[in-house]
Amino acid sequence: MTSPAPGDFAPPPDAATRARWRDAERAHLPDRTGRLRARMAADDVGAYFGVKREHMRWLTGFTLAEGEEKVAGHSGQLLVGPEDVAIVTDSRYTIQAHREAPAARIEEIGYDLAASWPRLVERTGARRVAVEAGAVSHALWERLAAAAPDVELVAVEGWLEALRAVKTADEVERVAAACAVADRALAALLPEIRPGVTEHDLALRLEWLMRTGGAEALAFDVACLAGPEAALPHGAPGDRPILAGEVLLFDFGAQVEGYRSDMTRTLFVGEPRERDLAVYDLVRRSQAAAIGTIEARVRAGAPTDGRELDAIARSVIEDDGRWPAYGHGLGHGIGLATHEAPSLSRSATEDPLPSPTVFSVEPGIYLEGETGVRIEDLVHLDASRGLVARLTLFPRDVIMLEG
Amino acid sequence: MTSPAPGDFAPPPDAATRARWRDAERAHLPDRTGRLRARMAADDVGAYFGVKREHMRWLTGFTLAEGEEKVAGHSGQLLVGPEDVAIVTDSRYTIQAHREAPAARIEEIGYDLAASWPRLVERTGARRVAVEAGAVSHALWERLAAAAPDVELVAVEGWLEALRAVKTADEVERVAAACAVADRALAALLPEIRPGVTEHDLALRLEWLMRTGGAEALAFDVACLAGPEAALPHGAPGDRPILAGEVLLFDFGAQVEGYRSDMTRTLFVGEPRERDLAVYDLVRRSQAAAIGTIEARVRAGAPTDGRELDAIARSVIEDDGRWPAYGHGLGHGIGLATHEAPSLSRSATEDPLPSPTVFSVEPGIYLEGETGVRIEDLVHLDASRGLVARLTLFPRDVIMLEG
Repeated sequence: MTSPAPGDFAPPPDAATRARWRDAERAHLPDRTGRLRARMAADDVGAYFGVKREHMRWLTGFTLAEGEEKVAGHSGQLLVGPEDVAIVTDSRYTIQAHREAPAARIEEIGYDLAASWPRLVERTGARRVAVEAGAVSHALWERLAAAAPDVELVAVEGWLEALRAVKTADEVERVAAACAVADRALAALLPEIRPGVTEHDLALRLEWLMRTGGAEALAFDVACLAGPEAALPHGAPGDRPILAGEVLLFDFGAQVEGYRSDMTRTLFVGEPRERDLAVYDLVRRSQAAAIGTIEARVRAGAPTDGRELDAIARSVIEDDGRWPAYGHGLGHGIGLATHEAPSLSRSATEDPLPSPTVFSVEPGIYLEGETGVRIEDLVHLDASRGLVARLTLFPRDVIMLEG
Repeated sequence: MTSPAPGDFAPPPDAATRARWRDAERAHLPDRTGRLRARMAADDVGAYFGVKREHMRWLTGFTLAEGEEKVAGHSGQLLVGPEDVAIVTDSRYTIQAHREAPAARIEEIGYDLAASWPRLVERTGARRVAVEAGAVSHALWERLAAAAPDVELVAVEGWLEALRAVKTADEVERVAAACAVADRALAALLPEIRPGVTEHDLALRLEWLMRTGGAEALAFDVACLAGPEAALPHGAPGDRPILAGEVLLFDFGAQVEGYRSDMTRTLFVGEPRERDLAVYDLVRRSQAAAIGTIEARVRAGAPTDGRELDAIARSVIEDDGRWPAYGHGLGHGIGLATHEAPSLSRSATEDPLPSPTVFSVEPGIYLEGETGVRIEDLVHLDASRGLVARLTLFPRDVIMLEG
């Protein structure tokens, strides 16, 4: 085959498209808050305290960059009551919050949330407040409980994750745009891959191609791992030069208007080893089996779940018997966060997958000290429309680069 | 004055220096674990459960990138007992953990920490376990408590932060190297700054200069804010073109062998406005007052603390009376994390600053809708040697770029 070229993939979104997405996002806010309030009513809580940056953006439009929560402290946390959504900030963030979240109430509280907690909760009228127990620290929980002893804190997990797993069309478009930025970048990098260049140099170059090619940020640090290093599912690029005859694994993603992509390709530099080609073929068949199952179920109008899909992909490798299957999960939802609901794994729920949704399908085989192969695509599932579509369009054929 | 040039600052560390730092880091591990165990003994706890990536690196050498904790889950968390340090991992991280932390015991537990908790704690013999309550989620706390009801969880905060605030020589050298990478990068960027280029383009370019000039990563996303945007202490670069007559604020830092820098400079594009020059002069005097106080105290053998220094810098602006002082704190410690102990702020402790240590001094004045000025340097304090030294060497003079 001929190698993919950047022009095979969609160009970055233009300004009008981006503006349309931002308008759509703002228009969704009342519906999103309404769905959260319905959940609150069902569980008899009068308010919801949230701390994750992706929840904040999804409910209000206020943005924090990845990792900025640590610097922001309590700024960028929110309290949803029956009447309004309050964004907690300090003076560093108030201007930004007013600008990005005009529909929210901005509560400038300084740096001590517990001191303001009784007043904030009283304003909502809540006696019971749902708190994101998987993200709020034990110390903060204890301080809030002590600050308003007559307010019951109710530990909840996964409420907003479940709501966010169901994607609107403009959200899926943005994930697809992030996929195209990544596809194009890898295609543009191919001619630069040759023995002697280092993992680090290729990772930096791939990042640069994404960030000058439509990505406002990375979805996560680029992994570029050669030969035996590809056996580290979360390894970091090193100063190792690429050698002919080795695999070269790239795991990377872009962020476009807040939404993210995630893809993995394992390429061959020079003449591939028979063993590596056989591993590659098996991983590709494992992935195809999982995606084929989704397609068959959607055509039949039958549900499928993340535990079953993981088992199907895993069984292709296990039944073959030559190498061990991946120790991680088969996949994960993606959107404002790189890893979100739904989960496809051995410990995933057997509830039907949400729809419409987007998730990764990424089986792998890792042979410590020898080699590693993973192939990862994002899949868009819309059961009601009978739709199963890969958003990652970079081919999965064996690609051999000059050695 | 002539503008600073890249050659004014130290070049990136060579391979031998980096290897020496890594050797030093490994040699420190027994002492660090010993200091933590002394604290454990003083508080009568038999084990310590830690979850922050910087604590993990400081105690074991195992590295996670910024933000990778979310992906890693429980992998990269640690349990320090009287005999050994256990790193909790799943299969994705075991190879890396063995490689980076040969002195630690690697406990591959899969994805369910609570299920393994009774066995892990029993091995330490502890009846009381200190838990990082400011970082462990309420949900995890409850699961651990339920998994081993006879083990008492003791909420602790700041233990490792206090230990890490005291820096060894090789740690300070690495922060200084990260400062030099940032200094050089800004000097190299100066000729490229002119009206019409956007904040976003300059931020990306400055990042590129750091990451191809010795930085393995950024300390945080580059802030480049022009004119009125500089009034946002944590604003993000936009597609706004730089205009002549405006201030241009850069807040940025590099990471070198794990250690970070953080600096802010406010430059002038074209002919400065009188008001902006006056604001700049006041901020510079505010910073000089704080650093001058530290120097005077060290010379006198007297202690100073982060609350006093914040008050001194703030009073320079308040006594002047023309503009409001910064709403944030005066500064923060820095090392493996961008923001760590000690804190210099209105709510900081009045305990003497630790020593030797490194922290930022960064007063600012923000006039919403008009302009903003901040000047930030890192300061190395070693009271026993009578040493107070700026590690940020980029000049603080008014720098006017062609308009």
